[in-house]
Amino acid sequence: MAERLSADARKQALGGIPGWAEVQDGKGIGKTFVFKDFNEAFGFMTRAALVAEKMDHHPEWRNVYKTVEVILSTHDAGGVTKLDIELATAMNAIAKLTQG
Amino acid sequence: MAERLSADARKQALGGIPGWAEVQDGKGIGKTFVFKDFNEAFGFMTRAALVAEKMDHHPEWRNVYKTVEVILSTHDAGGVTKLDIELATAMNAIAKLTQG
Repeated sequence: MAERLSADARKQALGGIPGWAEVQDGKGIGKTFVFKDFNEAFGFMTRAALVAEKMDHHPEWRNVYKTVEVILSTHDAGGVTKLDIELATAMNAIAKLTQG
Repeated sequence: MAERLSADARKQALGGIPGWAEVQDGKGIGKTFVFKDFNEAFGFMTRAALVAEKMDHHPEWRNVYKTVEVILSTHDAGGVTKLDIELATAMNAIAKLTQG
């Protein structure tokens, strides 16, 4: 099982994934993605969903038209693990491609 | 533009779409769908997204693993319109097919 990152390791990892910040007292990381329209927003979600399913690690997310708010946390580990950092990294890459 | 339904019309329409209830003081309608797993939940979302995009009427929704919480409202009309009832009806049908 993935182990919870220390506060220092978490902060260092966040430095490599622009736009992500600690939420829920450091138990998770969050980012709000804003796209051009619903087509782009849901396109992003669909690609991210495939990655999440393959990792067997899933986001908590909320979509309103062109906006997608994401929170990542590893509940079994009680906080943020490398799985969250990996999924956040993938989401940043997908968003970048989606936004062109 | 779709007109806001009266309280009576809204209550009557809700009678035809099981599981949906008024939220936000009657400004919207909401339902929480629970599926078997993420695959089913996101499958439901994908089919619903295509319907929403075609209607040009989009949900506010939140997904956590196998759960999808949906709120529908027509912001331009300041409340619930027939568009919300149509999308809710379509979502119930999609969920039923998804859940088998």
